[in-house]
Amino acid sequence: MAVVSLLLALDLAGVFAFALNGAFTAVRQARLDIVGVLALGVITAIGGGIVRDVLIDALPPATFVDWRYLAVAAAGALIAFFLTRPLERLVVPMIVLDAAGLSLFCVTGASKALAFGLGAAQAVILGAVTAVGGGTIRDVLIGRVPSVLSSGLYAVPALLGATVTVVAVRLHGYGIVAALLAAGLCFGVRMIGVRFNLNAPAARVGRHEAGAP
Amino acid sequence: MAVVSLLLALDLAGVFAFALNGAFTAVRQARLDIVGVLALGVITAIGGGIVRDVLIDALPPATFVDWRYLAVAAAGALIAFFLTRPLERLVVPMIVLDAAGLSLFCVTGASKALAFGLGAAQAVILGAVTAVGGGTIRDVLIGRVPSVLSSGLYAVPALLGATVTVVAVRLHGYGIVAALLAAGLCFGVRMIGVRFNLNAPAARVGRHEAGAP
Amino acid sequence: MAVVSLLLALDLAGVFAFALNGAFTAVRQARLDIVGVLALGVITAIGGGIVRDVLIDALPPATFVDWRYLAVAAAGALIAFFLTRPLERLVVPMIVLDAAGLSLFCVTGASKALAFGLGAAQAVILGAVTAVGGGTIRDVLIGRVPSVLSSGLYAVPALLGATVTVVAVRLHGYGIVAALLAAGLCFGVRMIGVRFNLNAPAARVGRHEAGAP
Repeated sequence: MAVVSLLLALDLAGVFAFALNGAFTAVRQARLDIVGVLALGVITAIGGGIVRDVLIDALPPATFVDWRYLAVAAAGALIAFFLTRPLERLVVPMIVLDAAGLSLFCVTGASKALAFGLGAAQAVILGAVTAVGGGTIRDVLIGRVPSVLSSGLYAVPALLGATVTVVAVRLHGYGIVAALLAAGLCFGVRMIGVRFNLNAPAARVGRHEAGAP
Repeated sequence: MAVVSLLLALDLAGVFAFALNGAFTAVRQARLDIVGVLALGVITAIGGGIVRDVLIDALPPATFVDWRYLAVAAAGALIAFFLTRPLERLVVPMIVLDAAGLSLFCVTGASKALAFGLGAAQAVILGAVTAVGGGTIRDVLIGRVPSVLSSGLYAVPALLGATVTVVAVRLHGYGIVAALLAAGLCFGVRMIGVRFNLNAPAARVGRHEAGAP
Repeated sequence: MAVVSLLLALDLAGVFAFALNGAFTAVRQARLDIVGVLALGVITAIGGGIVRDVLIDALPPATFVDWRYLAVAAAGALIAFFLTRPLERLVVPMIVLDAAGLSLFCVTGASKALAFGLGAAQAVILGAVTAVGGGTIRDVLIGRVPSVLSSGLYAVPALLGATVTVVAVRLHGYGIVAALLAAGLCFGVRMIGVRFNLNAPAARVGRHEAGAP
């Protein structure tokens, strides 16, 4: 029961972070009206969880069975819509909010996958899929190449956080501390990647030719 | 039984409208050949219903179990392909067809969700998801920002139609009259939005700066 | 049992071909780093099978239950990443790999759909959906119009291969020979289409106007 409550609390926190992020993105990068902002905020917030629930056959998705997900997602999107002007100069929060959602969802995605009987490796991947799912749908809808493809240190921290979660569950040490440690590790690695603009190594494809004037 | 037949009839009418719309879009905006036209018409027509059936765990989707969906979708797409030249100057029908599909699917989506035991709020949202799903997949495939994000009065009429449907079902007044009223309301609001180019309010994001020369 | 092994072997071969293809695409067309290459390779490789398994309600998808899918997909993507430089001048393989994946997946998709009790027409379409699914997700993620829409002879050979598979199963003649014949037919038709740049007929939409200077 305690683990279920913990999962729910972390899930809703992730939903809120991604709803703010999706709504800010809708306002700034796609110049959408309030309905578009609400739609993109909600989709970003619950997209990852829906993909997870479809893949582990937990249908209908928690989002639809449990009204709190939709309420938190809609609230986050509306708050972002009305706070856009006061927060106009804050560019940082969008990246921080995205990293927060990523960190929370990799933990909840992995632990829910384990609870539905999937193996350890599958749970790690599903944690990462949950974490990157909403943002990927957001980027596809507004015509951007998704972060999971373009940014090296986006999938990696999600996989790390999911791995720590799975290890903690298997060692019977999963709880609020382990969950926050796993999320914190993901968040830290992601923010280090953002701060230093780190990317994983790329293949060399006639780079001198591509770079020549 | 009568409600099932009504649902099927409205669903197939919506499939036909979206198949025509998707196929016209393929011909005019993406200049696709007959296979591409058929593919985009069918995907637009059955995409929303598939998303709905996945989310309410009605798998395999009705589209695959019941051959009439695919037959009507394919027929609509082929008719659009061969009638494109005679109808060349008719731009209006594309918007009307899209609005017709939207209106029919918000009703069928909501009533099917209720029939599968989902709550009222969830059924309203699933009605809207069914209505906007096919068009959203169509727009993503050809690289357009989906109407559900860019056009304020697109999701709202779908939510209205779905709400009327859910209220009618809960008051035991659902039938052909209520279904047509709900669809008509959605269609009317959508066409008013198109006619007067109405959008919901947008956030003010340094508009003077963005608009400055 | 023999049919299951055959299905698995063909499926894994298709996964490998699409993983190479998706990873090469990531390196060359989207200039992604190693994580992006791995992600796009794996998604291309297993995307079609996941769509199929969702639609036939075989959840969680084989990809997640059976670790061999993910292992083969990851191996293919990594091989492509490290072999990109030596293979730099080989453009042909990308099209050949895509055609190979298409051919293998239309057979496995159709036969798995039949095994799950779907009808013949549905199995043919699901075979084609499995075949084109991964490549379509790949193209949407990097912002390209999917081949299934833009290239006439892409969906058609997949439908042909799936049809031969379904006929063979229904005539109790399905086995390694029939499967390879079906895949070979799909592959042959696809490569003929590529070689001669064949497309299905397009609608005439004021072509003289569009072509005028």
